[in-house]
Amino acid sequence: MGELLKGKPVADAIAKEVKDRVQELKAKNIQPKLMIVRVGERPDDISYEKAAIKRMQGCGIDSQVVLLPADISQNDFIEKLKSVNNDESVHGILLFRPLPGQIDESIVKHIISPEKDIDCFNPANVAKIVEGDKTGFAPCTPRAAMEILKYYKVELKGKRAVVIGRSLVVGKPMAMLLLEEDATVTICHSKTPELSKLTSEADILVAAIGRARMIKDDFIKEGAVVIDVGINVDRDGNICGDVDTERCREKASLITPVPAGVGSVTTAVLAKHVLKACCLANNI
Amino acid sequence: MGELLKGKPVADAIAKEVKDRVQELKAKNIQPKLMIVRVGERPDDISYEKAAIKRMQGCGIDSQVVLLPADISQNDFIEKLKSVNNDESVHGILLFRPLPGQIDESIVKHIISPEKDIDCFNPANVAKIVEGDKTGFAPCTPRAAMEILKYYKVELKGKRAVVIGRSLVVGKPMAMLLLEEDATVTICHSKTPELSKLTSEADILVAAIGRARMIKDDFIKEGAVVIDVGINVDRDGNICGDVDTERCREKASLITPVPAGVGSVTTAVLAKHVLKACCLANNI
Repeated sequence: MGELLKGKPVADAIAKEVKDRVQELKAKNIQPKLMIVRVGERPDDISYEKAAIKRMQGCGIDSQVVLLPADISQNDFIEKLKSVNNDESVHGILLFRPLPGQIDESIVKHIISPEKDIDCFNPANVAKIVEGDKTGFAPCTPRAAMEILKYYKVELKGKRAVVIGRSLVVGKPMAMLLLEEDATVTICHSKTPELSKLTSEADILVAAIGRARMIKDDFIKEGAVVIDVGINVDRDGNICGDVDTERCREKASLITPVPAGVGSVTTAVLAKHVLKACCLANNI
Repeated sequence: MGELLKGKPVADAIAKEVKDRVQELKAKNIQPKLMIVRVGERPDDISYEKAAIKRMQGCGIDSQVVLLPADISQNDFIEKLKSVNNDESVHGILLFRPLPGQIDESIVKHIISPEKDIDCFNPANVAKIVEGDKTGFAPCTPRAAMEILKYYKVELKGKRAVVIGRSLVVGKPMAMLLLEEDATVTICHSKTPELSKLTSEADILVAAIGRARMIKDDFIKEGAVVIDVGINVDRDGNICGDVDTERCREKASLITPVPAGVGSVTTAVLAKHVLKACCLANNI
């Protein structure tokens, strides 16, 4: 029976370290601050926003929300985002995506300065992940998955890692972060035939598909480490991951639950990134 | 006995298309131009430079070389590179790398504008490969490998591709380009154990290791397509690839030779990129 890799102890450990360092900054009259930019009233965004604000409070980081109407014009949006970016008291900016259709992300993504871009929206940070440049910011979700692997001391060097999903927000950066730790990495996706055959080779399997409980026990190798990045709502209205945790737990050695797995670490990573951005801004 | 995928017909087809389009531009008084920036007298650079100039001539593209001393200071180098970049008659810039140790590539890589950066030095182009944004420029070598696969009509969608090597110049961008074509992609490297076991699963195997004839027939699957990106000099002074072509040819269905394989397509890709940069500059 595989051990459940709960997110809470990981998040707590990160948050504690962040809090201690924030105290040191405050003693130097430096106050880290997160600005959340939300367009519209998507329930997922609102619930993540609440969790993020609570996390920042716990770490001594200021946070504030800029709420914009869902039908905001691109020009107005750009103006708002620029003014947030130019605010020197703001160290990190979290912008909820996807943006409404009238706003062209390919234009807007350059506005948040790379140094304030704590969730990897700016191409400068996308490039840094590929380059292995640690001055950048990876998206919070794949970074949270990496933090879990690190906390639970999962050896990555020389291991077979398989990532299911090739999104810019999870799959591709996750692959690059695993590669950086010397894993051999395979990226699978919706066009991959015989998916279960491939995933069964993985020592570390990362599921970032977005389909409720799609990964069954025949997708995993005996003893595998399974990281479930999915957050779905099943037919009965229950939150669940991409992995059928109950069935896979028999075979896996370690497996993250959903909820209470990767998702619960992302706000702690967000806090860590705000702290890092604040240090960068102050040349610390 | 596998068919040899020679680079020449691929390069010829690309060059013909480029030449025809350059003629059309010239009729509009637009003259595409490549600027090559070379630091020092490395023989590999000089031989590639010669081939590139010849290729540009064949396509009707102007080319010019800025030669800088190997001991140039970083400040002088930056000044020169900026002036080349600001020259409006120049559409594409090829800068030989690696640069001498006194020049910090992490600073210098931002100088060439993304629109003139035809060999993917600027992080803006690195990000575009990951994003699948076709307005950017991939490095010429992995793009040349893709051109060969396209020319010889190798199906990529749903196929298992294995890339050996994770450099920023070949391995990583190659993986992203294959992923863009819906292949399932595995990236292996020096820390991958049981390499031959993994590479034997590949429908398409790309070798970008830099070790003479390292890939033997037991590394490849019966009927695989083998793309050899390596250019090495063996003990006898002969140029050879990362693949032992003679031994692997028995098993492979298609295999690129070295020399006369991928390497002979890169200058044609370079010409194609200069043309594209020229069109971008002229809003065509």
